[in-house]
Amino acid sequence: MTELPSYQDLPAAPRGGRSAWGLFGPNDNLGLVTLMTPERVAAAAALVRTGRMYPLDVELGGIAPALARNRGTSRHAVVHQAGSAGFDDVYDNVWPQAGSQWDSLGHVGYAPDEFFNGATEADIWTGVRNTIDHWARHGIAGRAVLLDIPRAMAKAGRDYEPEAPTAIGVAELELARQLAGVDFGAGDIMLLNTGFGAWYAAQPAGLRERLPHRLSAPGLAHTEAVAEYLWDLHVSAIASDTFAVEVWPPERDPAAYPFGFLHHMLIGQFGMALGELWWLQDLADSCAADDVYESFLVSVPMNAPGGIGSPANAVAIK
Amino acid sequence: MTELPSYQDLPAAPRGGRSAWGLFGPNDNLGLVTLMTPERVAAAAALVRTGRMYPLDVELGGIAPALARNRGTSRHAVVHQAGSAGFDDVYDNVWPQAGSQWDSLGHVGYAPDEFFNGATEADIWTGVRNTIDHWARHGIAGRAVLLDIPRAMAKAGRDYEPEAPTAIGVAELELARQLAGVDFGAGDIMLLNTGFGAWYAAQPAGLRERLPHRLSAPGLAHTEAVAEYLWDLHVSAIASDTFAVEVWPPERDPAAYPFGFLHHMLIGQFGMALGELWWLQDLADSCAADDVYESFLVSVPMNAPGGIGSPANAVAIK
Amino acid sequence: MTELPSYQDLPAAPRGGRSAWGLFGPNDNLGLVTLMTPERVAAAAALVRTGRMYPLDVELGGIAPALARNRGTSRHAVVHQAGSAGFDDVYDNVWPQAGSQWDSLGHVGYAPDEFFNGATEADIWTGVRNTIDHWARHGIAGRAVLLDIPRAMAKAGRDYEPEAPTAIGVAELELARQLAGVDFGAGDIMLLNTGFGAWYAAQPAGLRERLPHRLSAPGLAHTEAVAEYLWDLHVSAIASDTFAVEVWPPERDPAAYPFGFLHHMLIGQFGMALGELWWLQDLADSCAADDVYESFLVSVPMNAPGGIGSPANAVAIK
Amino acid sequence: MTELPSYQDLPAAPRGGRSAWGLFGPNDNLGLVTLMTPERVAAAAALVRTGRMYPLDVELGGIAPALARNRGTSRHAVVHQAGSAGFDDVYDNVWPQAGSQWDSLGHVGYAPDEFFNGATEADIWTGVRNTIDHWARHGIAGRAVLLDIPRAMAKAGRDYEPEAPTAIGVAELELARQLAGVDFGAGDIMLLNTGFGAWYAAQPAGLRERLPHRLSAPGLAHTEAVAEYLWDLHVSAIASDTFAVEVWPPERDPAAYPFGFLHHMLIGQFGMALGELWWLQDLADSCAADDVYESFLVSVPMNAPGGIGSPANAVAIK
Repeated sequence: MTELPSYQDLPAAPRGGRSAWGLFGPNDNLGLVTLMTPERVAAAAALVRTGRMYPLDVELGGIAPALARNRGTSRHAVVHQAGSAGFDDVYDNVWPQAGSQWDSLGHVGYAPDEFFNGATEADIWTGVRNTIDHWARHGIAGRAVLLDIPRAMAKAGRDYEPEAPTAIGVAELELARQLAGVDFGAGDIMLLNTGFGAWYAAQPAGLRERLPHRLSAPGLAHTEAVAEYLWDLHVSAIASDTFAVEVWPPERDPAAYPFGFLHHMLIGQFGMALGELWWLQDLADSCAADDVYESFLVSVPMNAPGGIGSPANAVAIK
Repeated sequence: MTELPSYQDLPAAPRGGRSAWGLFGPNDNLGLVTLMTPERVAAAAALVRTGRMYPLDVELGGIAPALARNRGTSRHAVVHQAGSAGFDDVYDNVWPQAGSQWDSLGHVGYAPDEFFNGATEADIWTGVRNTIDHWARHGIAGRAVLLDIPRAMAKAGRDYEPEAPTAIGVAELELARQLAGVDFGAGDIMLLNTGFGAWYAAQPAGLRERLPHRLSAPGLAHTEAVAEYLWDLHVSAIASDTFAVEVWPPERDPAAYPFGFLHHMLIGQFGMALGELWWLQDLADSCAADDVYESFLVSVPMNAPGGIGSPANAVAIK
Repeated sequence: MTELPSYQDLPAAPRGGRSAWGLFGPNDNLGLVTLMTPERVAAAAALVRTGRMYPLDVELGGIAPALARNRGTSRHAVVHQAGSAGFDDVYDNVWPQAGSQWDSLGHVGYAPDEFFNGATEADIWTGVRNTIDHWARHGIAGRAVLLDIPRAMAKAGRDYEPEAPTAIGVAELELARQLAGVDFGAGDIMLLNTGFGAWYAAQPAGLRERLPHRLSAPGLAHTEAVAEYLWDLHVSAIASDTFAVEVWPPERDPAAYPFGFLHHMLIGQFGMALGELWWLQDLADSCAADDVYESFLVSVPMNAPGGIGSPANAVAIK
Repeated sequence: MTELPSYQDLPAAPRGGRSAWGLFGPNDNLGLVTLMTPERVAAAAALVRTGRMYPLDVELGGIAPALARNRGTSRHAVVHQAGSAGFDDVYDNVWPQAGSQWDSLGHVGYAPDEFFNGATEADIWTGVRNTIDHWARHGIAGRAVLLDIPRAMAKAGRDYEPEAPTAIGVAELELARQLAGVDFGAGDIMLLNTGFGAWYAAQPAGLRERLPHRLSAPGLAHTEAVAEYLWDLHVSAIASDTFAVEVWPPERDPAAYPFGFLHHMLIGQFGMALGELWWLQDLADSCAADDVYESFLVSVPMNAPGGIGSPANAVAIK
């Protein structure tokens, strides 16, 4: 695993794009998280200088109603036991995908019944392959590099609205990377701050109620060039403050497949960890203030056998 | 905050023991987690040498039925949206206190209606004070030192059963600390491995069904000496592989108050973070193997406004 | 209560229409269900001739996804206890309003913060007034008369589509009543079969998924004439096979208020029990077959203190 | 089906007692509810004289904590949609078996994997046989006869404590039947008022908390004579105000099988509908007052495909 092939050297995938299936063995359920080796984790931990912590999860209930209409918001009950000096609590209707989250490799496939590394729908449904517990047992930690799209766009003199469906292509990613002043390395985590999260946090309840019916957000462009760029960085993960990492709405036109909904490629073919609805604004402000865009990121996914997603449970330490 | 008073210098608490209320200000909701300063976090991160990660959460469903009979076990549903290439999931009946967890400072008080730093039941119930979100916003990370009780007892030639109610007093804690070969520092996390967790994991279903009706476990002795010892270490947290950190059953005799149920002191007066039902066996085995008992521990508590507890979401990195 | 005033004799309501508040006393929480007196129940029971039962609740899960997007569908888990010869079960995410249901008088007000008989939002939220337990304690039973709109329209030679927003006005109600060949009496239950329920039951999953985004259905016309007609019948309840009893979508234009959304009048001013999404097709077929349109209806609302709605739990016996 | 065999004429069951399997055909999932024919329903409706209704469900939350420790209590959330004039609500953790309920024929078997009429555990788990929806589609109604054990015992000059494990044998059932002054007929519902329900309702919270750990209650004696008596009455159902209908605790001694836990016989072999934790006190008081012990009972079980139990949803009308 010392050297991963470049995108152009990957074999063609049957429905378009290229395939990374089998690269980590036929039974692999980790995907690119495999690249988070002890050596890289140790190197990333050495990035901690001040010890300042930036928790990256939006508070529970902070995104409500759920942006995807088939999901819900959690309910919380505090329970007092008679005669005791204390409290317990209990949650219902907890949809990990409705808040700050990781998508497991079972969340979206390359195509129906074709999940990362050849897993089937039945494999996912029964929790045999690709589910979140594989990452939970392995651990997720590494070097994170923040890409601050709003600041990069401003520096480049370009208009930018964090709630508009701006496609972030290779050029825009490079602008932000240059602002960060660093290169990516294998096993890194890209933190893609689009400004959507901070925008959403400032919206009134009425707009939030209507938003699920007309969703749009900036995000990765629906192009093969973006897929190639991301693969060739060999990052393990991309986490964003939007709900889909990629620009929304997707292109459902069959001609755009599989890039029209990049999840098909990034999760289904690359085995990349996608993080969504993360809170990146405080970290972004800190990066702008001290001009240090890298940090040690630690996430502890929920150890849920058969789980499709997990709260992000992530913190960046600088 | 450079110098915390010793236990003997704390004022007497009205119902027995000594009180740390007010030490971090009248409005503090962090307790001893306050000691997890950036400087200490940075120093702890420097302990990472190999980059090996030890996730510390028992898998969901791994402790069932709930050991406390008033709690429950979570239910998990995998959801497939018609026409999609993917899955979502949803959880119900999630009791953080039934699995690997943190107790917030709202979980147990010094006495009914007397929670850490003077918070009332109403303050907890309405989520105004002491709830888990305070730690989630601050972050939890630091130097962890593992105390391996079974190995320390074995080395000392003492009998020890991980399911029996063995009281771990100052002498036993010292035995384990000496085995670890290190001292504690302010802001550290004590990981108290009693062997209960590994024992439980090996039990058949029938025994697990009966266990809630006759609970016992080793843990901290119900003595003021233990409280004094722990306070004087100025550790921020103690996490154990048992369900209560302290020996079980508690002593409900009023004469034993508040030490008969040490939660009253540790949480209610000291503001100490207690972690329960953590999975410490893999880490303990690693410590025994390489004779390195310290690690960098990172936990990301659930950012739940008003939450009483949280999954541990913890990982030790060596 | 021997004689209720006619609509024209009711006092004007402040935001339009007329008000029945206070008619059953200032503290009444039953509304027109008050008219279901023992004498009328006994008379209705005498309608039972053959003893054939027509359960009127759609099966759980029969309406999915929920037609109103803010609601959800229930989850069911079957639980087997180790070593037992049996099963238990448990339900989560049960939204009474998403299936065959009664709306309590706390479900919709005449206006925000103005619920039936002067109850406030706080009264409803805290379960002090108008909630479903009042009807549960009183009981719901009486003479039901089925109005079969599709058959009445067909007999009149009029086009009719059960999924189209056909306004059912006084003329159409009278057509159906004449088909039934009976008059209404005080305390009766009108069963308004629009054909929507049977149409929905025959739709494929894909259409059901899209339906919540473009809801329409036949139902009561948004006119004062309909309100007057219904009041003057002095029926206690109207239950329909649609999700709203009234034609959908409502008229949100302030000029149409309060008739544009008849719930404001029927529930908020009249205190009438509205039943929705009932399964009326089998009963309707039986009525057409034996030309007997009246039956003894018994419903047992959920005895839920503070409940906003209830499963219909209804059966018609002929 | 005009004539059912007597108990002595039933074939022997393989593990003791006698078997009614196959009596209503090999594919029957209704059991003795089959006897609730239209003719009997019509005859029972004719018992309605005054029209007074006696709802028979304890309010939600009225039995808490759950008497069986593996069950839970429901949680209720009231939901207000922004900008609306109304409320919805939603329930979680709803265990039908924890409150006023019907046991379906899938609840308890004659033996593990041997359910009524030969159904297997897999048949129940997958909802193929014996589940509550069969009764929901058929309907449950008929003549109810109340047996008032406390009053019958008092009249006979016998001591009786409604919380003690008094075995109610044939003699005691006959005492109560004679007090009622009527005979049972095929398809009837026996309402067995033991006084436990009224006793429980009067207990303080502390006692209720402890009760699940030392359960006892009066109920049917664990004898074959009782099984024979009940079968020979050919009643369809027995509903009681206790949690088990039969005396508690059961006799787990293999020598007492299958009568030591009468559920094995009544549900598993006879296919009898058992109702538990019903509220019978108001009806019992009315019977004592007017000396009329029969009524028309209507229950509308939840139409839940694959459901193991259902709220009672029952009302007696006199």
